[in-house]
Amino acid sequence: MHPIPKARFEQFSDGVFAIAITLLAIELRSPVLHSQDLIRSIRELTPLLPTLITFVISFVTIAIFWVNHHQLSHLVQHIDRRRILWSNVLFLLFLTLIPFVTQGVSSYPFHPLTMLAYSLVFLGASISFSMLRYFVHKTLGETRVPMTRSIFGPVLYTLAAISTLFSVEMAYVLLAIPALYYFLPKSST
Amino acid sequence: MHPIPKARFEQFSDGVFAIAITLLAIELRSPVLHSQDLIRSIRELTPLLPTLITFVISFVTIAIFWVNHHQLSHLVQHIDRRRILWSNVLFLLFLTLIPFVTQGVSSYPFHPLTMLAYSLVFLGASISFSMLRYFVHKTLGETRVPMTRSIFGPVLYTLAAISTLFSVEMAYVLLAIPALYYFLPKSST
Amino acid sequence: MHPIPKARFEQFSDGVFAIAITLLAIELRSPVLHSQDLIRSIRELTPLLPTLITFVISFVTIAIFWVNHHQLSHLVQHIDRRRILWSNVLFLLFLTLIPFVTQGVSSYPFHPLTMLAYSLVFLGASISFSMLRYFVHKTLGETRVPMTRSIFGPVLYTLAAISTLFSVEMAYVLLAIPALYYFLPKSST
Amino acid sequence: MHPIPKARFEQFSDGVFAIAITLLAIELRSPVLHSQDLIRSIRELTPLLPTLITFVISFVTIAIFWVNHHQLSHLVQHIDRRRILWSNVLFLLFLTLIPFVTQGVSSYPFHPLTMLAYSLVFLGASISFSMLRYFVHKTLGETRVPMTRSIFGPVLYTLAAISTLFSVEMAYVLLAIPALYYFLPKSST
Repeated sequence: MHPIPKARFEQFSDGVFAIAITLLAIELRSPVLHSQDLIRSIRELTPLLPTLITFVISFVTIAIFWVNHHQLSHLVQHIDRRRILWSNVLFLLFLTLIPFVTQGVSSYPFHPLTMLAYSLVFLGASISFSMLRYFVHKTLGETRVPMTRSIFGPVLYTLAAISTLFSVEMAYVLLAIPALYYFLPKSST
Repeated sequence: MHPIPKARFEQFSDGVFAIAITLLAIELRSPVLHSQDLIRSIRELTPLLPTLITFVISFVTIAIFWVNHHQLSHLVQHIDRRRILWSNVLFLLFLTLIPFVTQGVSSYPFHPLTMLAYSLVFLGASISFSMLRYFVHKTLGETRVPMTRSIFGPVLYTLAAISTLFSVEMAYVLLAIPALYYFLPKSST
Repeated sequence: MHPIPKARFEQFSDGVFAIAITLLAIELRSPVLHSQDLIRSIRELTPLLPTLITFVISFVTIAIFWVNHHQLSHLVQHIDRRRILWSNVLFLLFLTLIPFVTQGVSSYPFHPLTMLAYSLVFLGASISFSMLRYFVHKTLGETRVPMTRSIFGPVLYTLAAISTLFSVEMAYVLLAIPALYYFLPKSST
Repeated sequence: MHPIPKARFEQFSDGVFAIAITLLAIELRSPVLHSQDLIRSIRELTPLLPTLITFVISFVTIAIFWVNHHQLSHLVQHIDRRRILWSNVLFLLFLTLIPFVTQGVSSYPFHPLTMLAYSLVFLGASISFSMLRYFVHKTLGETRVPMTRSIFGPVLYTLAAISTLFSVEMAYVLLAIPALYYFLPKSST
């Protein structure tokens, strides 16, 4: 295998990132409006609320993955290992499933199954991303791989998946943690 | 955080821009044609007219944002500030909502609520874009940030949002102003 | 206005090209199959035939526009004229409408109105592309602009639009000419 | 014809690859859930199983094509032959049809016709890719073109197409071979 130049690897991955994040909003469906009155039709929008929250969680989570993906590909010059390539493909597979499970949660907002599917896709994405990180660091000949970051995502999404068995609201809060953490304003740069 | 090279920042943003602008037309739905006669079926197309106007307004507004986004990223070399990164993510979030609210206006053309949602998404996009502009100029160490341009959009879209309470037609005209301004031929280059 | 580097201009345009061409196939809808038998269900596919022909015509036409767009942007270094920028935006607007009118023709294959809309969108794309070509050549200070190529498309699609009033089949043949011309094997390279 | 720089050729192709692969998941449709109970609604998901397998097969097959496409464009500097350009357009045409036939198989999982269409689109993609490979190697002035690789895909998908006449399950297994081969972990890098 010829090594794949980083430019093309990023170009393809960025394409998938950009499409997946934009399609989130496409899956949103406007509710049927029965009233011509502004106040009454705002009340007809209430079912849209969990949909919008789920949209924001998915959007910010994909954005976080994108930033981390950049940080990782920053470290390599060429993609010359089959393992890096295929763990990236596996990661992109889970990434493209995010709009699908987001739509599932939007259609059945507090249903344990849709929340379970949502958590499992995020779990799959974070595990395959940690695999990608592991192979990248191993290629660089580093002995110490940043374990804390690699374990945080998988543990969080495992907890979210388990909590759907008991409390769907709890799973919702767990899934929103990364979005809240990164998006809220901070004092530092 | 490693600084993100401008190339990748633009690549991802351009991807979202390109997809959002192309999906506008996907949301268009051809009306059901009952007649095989050309003249009669043109009459069956009349409900498509507000849809087409809204499509053009959204298309040109996204194109204007794209040109301005370029002008801004032209100024920076690396995206090394978390604030620039996340105000861009916030901007892209509103950008991806434009096809959704465009479809809303297409489905209920002169409904105050869909026009309000349309105005608010444009307002969110223009405010987050002004935030992005502010952080970029601050990073460059400039003391004078171009205020006029940063305030024009937010003020216009606030007016449009308020006017939906009184006159939907008025809001329509306000929202079309940037499109008309940039798209109409001018004497200068 | 800062001149826009060609890279970003092409990146955005290529994104729109790639999405528009891929969405053509998304608009295809599989027919309902009633029979489990292979031969009988192939017969159930016959309504798909005009859809597939229209898909191929649109696909190849977009590909031809893409090749010509490259040939044109090859000539310029920076996009520093507002006229080049906005004639490109106008061209992309018609480009994104191609999947929409393709779907229209697929839904009502031999209807004069859908063929008229299809012809008019191609006409708009070819006129705005000729405008783009004109402004690019003018920027380069050339006195002789290649007129033959710039006029061929607009004339062909005007003829197609007019012929929908008399014969839909005739319009079909006219619209297929560029696709047939470029795609058929030739002796030269 | 001016030679097309490889960058733009890859950019456009990568865009189509990225969109086609992401749209696979968009075609997935969540089933209607009647029960609020987790265990019962998992049982309601069983019809989704062949859909998911087909999704994975299509996803990995597109990823394999992407890797091979890179390996090929690695060899050329400029796309200066019309034959290379148009065999690439033909390949992309079949590529964009993959989400469409994937959706067909998802809708009618063990129907001979959908499996036949699925096999034929893969056959078309692999034949046009072999044409592309042939023209690239010929441009390089090589006398020996790697025949084994160029023949494997077409032969496999011809067998899959024929086997749909006798056994749909057999076709399924044949179509999954490349995905299984590339994706399963190996000892070497």
